[in-house]
Amino acid sequence: MTSPLAAEAMARCDALAQCSEETGAITRPYASESLRRAQALVADWMRAAGMAVARDNIGNVRGRYEGLVADAPVLLLGSHIDSVRNAGRYDGPLGVVVALAAVQRLRDERRRMPFAIEVIAFADEEGLRFRSTYLGSRALAGALPAAELERADASGMTMAAAISAFGGNPAALADDRWRGPAPLGYVEVHIEQGPVLEARRLPVGVVSAIAGQNRYALNFKGEAGHAGTVPMNGRRDALAAAAEFVLAVEAEGRAVAALVATVGQMDVRPGAANVIPDDVDLSLDVRDPEDGERLQSCGRLLERAEDIGVERNITVTVKPMTEHAAVRCSPRLTEILAAAIGQAGYEVISLTSGAGHDGVVMASLTEIAMLFVRCKGGVSHSPGESVDAEDVDVAIDVLGRFLDLLARG
Amino acid sequence: MTSPLAAEAMARCDALAQCSEETGAITRPYASESLRRAQALVADWMRAAGMAVARDNIGNVRGRYEGLVADAPVLLLGSHIDSVRNAGRYDGPLGVVVALAAVQRLRDERRRMPFAIEVIAFADEEGLRFRSTYLGSRALAGALPAAELERADASGMTMAAAISAFGGNPAALADDRWRGPAPLGYVEVHIEQGPVLEARRLPVGVVSAIAGQNRYALNFKGEAGHAGTVPMNGRRDALAAAAEFVLAVEAEGRAVAALVATVGQMDVRPGAANVIPDDVDLSLDVRDPEDGERLQSCGRLLERAEDIGVERNITVTVKPMTEHAAVRCSPRLTEILAAAIGQAGYEVISLTSGAGHDGVVMASLTEIAMLFVRCKGGVSHSPGESVDAEDVDVAIDVLGRFLDLLARG
Repeated sequence: MTSPLAAEAMARCDALAQCSEETGAITRPYASESLRRAQALVADWMRAAGMAVARDNIGNVRGRYEGLVADAPVLLLGSHIDSVRNAGRYDGPLGVVVALAAVQRLRDERRRMPFAIEVIAFADEEGLRFRSTYLGSRALAGALPAAELERADASGMTMAAAISAFGGNPAALADDRWRGPAPLGYVEVHIEQGPVLEARRLPVGVVSAIAGQNRYALNFKGEAGHAGTVPMNGRRDALAAAAEFVLAVEAEGRAVAALVATVGQMDVRPGAANVIPDDVDLSLDVRDPEDGERLQSCGRLLERAEDIGVERNITVTVKPMTEHAAVRCSPRLTEILAAAIGQAGYEVISLTSGAGHDGVVMASLTEIAMLFVRCKGGVSHSPGESVDAEDVDVAIDVLGRFLDLLARG
Repeated sequence: MTSPLAAEAMARCDALAQCSEETGAITRPYASESLRRAQALVADWMRAAGMAVARDNIGNVRGRYEGLVADAPVLLLGSHIDSVRNAGRYDGPLGVVVALAAVQRLRDERRRMPFAIEVIAFADEEGLRFRSTYLGSRALAGALPAAELERADASGMTMAAAISAFGGNPAALADDRWRGPAPLGYVEVHIEQGPVLEARRLPVGVVSAIAGQNRYALNFKGEAGHAGTVPMNGRRDALAAAAEFVLAVEAEGRAVAALVATVGQMDVRPGAANVIPDDVDLSLDVRDPEDGERLQSCGRLLERAEDIGVERNITVTVKPMTEHAAVRCSPRLTEILAAAIGQAGYEVISLTSGAGHDGVVMASLTEIAMLFVRCKGGVSHSPGESVDAEDVDVAIDVLGRFLDLLARG
């Protein structure tokens, strides 16, 4: 039997899914009209839960539920409400609506905690628009260099211009940095995006660490030519070189136990059926819970790209885009989360997160913990994302118990 | 020493190169503003050579230089003036300006032949805009089915609408069909687009046959997923499957002697660094002077695509786009061309053409012959295309001698 709070949380995920740049698909990039509509919904829900709502310059929506006393310390909860292209409806939004449900319950029960609670709906975690992840949490953690403002989206619009158009002041991003006393911690609820909880038949689990990640942009530059007249042995085909690299990336991922390695973007130019391609851009994403494994694999892959270039007389250029070391979750907060799960009557299991999360950045500001919620088939970043209301019910219950346990100290 | 006619022909190729949709690159698609400007230039040059100029519905510019008598038979000369993306300046235009130079010389010498000469500047051979080649010559040969009018360009505009906007009547395309008595033949001058003449140190050569060609559009459909959380062994990565196919195409081209096989276009969706691609479109182009070899290779490659799909649990869809059998050039016309080369003082060599040409279609209407002109490094479909004015001089001279020899019967 699903609680009204869980049913409402599910309905809220559905409502956010309606905020999209595309009809029939969920695509909600940073500083878009669809994100503006999603933010308006979240702000309404925050107010309904008795929270004071603020918006910072980068565009995070921040709701504050005061504690028992005016200068109470602050616990941060939250997740992001931007999305990838053709996304599912739970990656990000679920963490916001579960946090709001936990606060709503306090409000309904007219309870205050010995700490204030700030729920943050981060404006950009996926980085779809500017190919730069964690904009929201980086602004909050004071880890967003001004140089990032010069990044341009596909239409050529700079991030600075996008921030202005979205209602923020790009010159005042430093003001977004957390300014109060050190928070008690940051706790995020998120779908697992993996198959473990489903296989173990458990609704939730705690996260021990978030995998480290490297992203690179590679360019393969060969020579264009007529597809009918340039003999095969005289070709410098940039696409064939890139294809060889794509398979090398896949092979590396298969060969190293916990590693995942992905080429997600590829642009092939000039892009005519009768012209040998001379110019290919592609993205490389490498992740592993162990920093050593990850860095070794990155090294091997970049070396392989270089070898392919030499073997094929192709100029290969590698541009490092982002690098995040693996992040360990707070043992103390994670223990309390685990106790809450135990109280709720479930076995406690510990998972590593292959996906990056705002917690990676928030870890530079405070201790972090994460609660994973089972999702169907481990599917995410796809319209096929699916979560059961019963599991959301458990997540709300566990987060409420966590707040109580934390209050007891 | 270059003749004024050859210098003018080179200058005309330069002038046509200025007609482009892109600054700093030559891109002249069918029914574009840049093609309209190119056509205006060609029409002026035709009039200057004493020709009556007409434009048909598909948009071919046709200049007619009358023969000695009113009902003289007609010899067709020509080539195309559209281009691939980021093209060179000689593929197509050279054949038009050399034909115009040969007529200009007759005009300058106040000579008429026992046959009329029609020089045709075809409106579309490369098929850049509608991915459908030979639109111009197919209209002239009556080989353009009405269904083709429904093809759409990248912006969604149909070919019918493009024809209308370009000044033609799409409902009257059948009127473009050649209506007079059977022509004497179709002769096209074209850059070799290959390395043979350069290696043999010869300015020109005759063409014995044009390679047959198959084009296919393939789609690889897998499953999207999060690049950080879906384990490697659970992936259905459409890009990895496509990459395997690209390398199979290259391997087939390398394994079969005269075969060339190319993947020139590839679109990868959804196209985000952190999402496993689920949807890849690509083009396959296969050519060989021997129809049997070509068809066997096509069969092997499509079977390989199917196998990749089965091995990777990827849905592979193959759509045949175009198929042209190899075309043999007219022995009679080619002999006369060879005699003209001999008269001009050069060794006669015979080449096959790996590239398709309007002659492939014109062969269904009349006998065809082709004269190839040496180009630097065999480079074409690239800004690096380069032709020497001295060789263009030879081509004009040989074509003039050909007209004289043909007149003698």
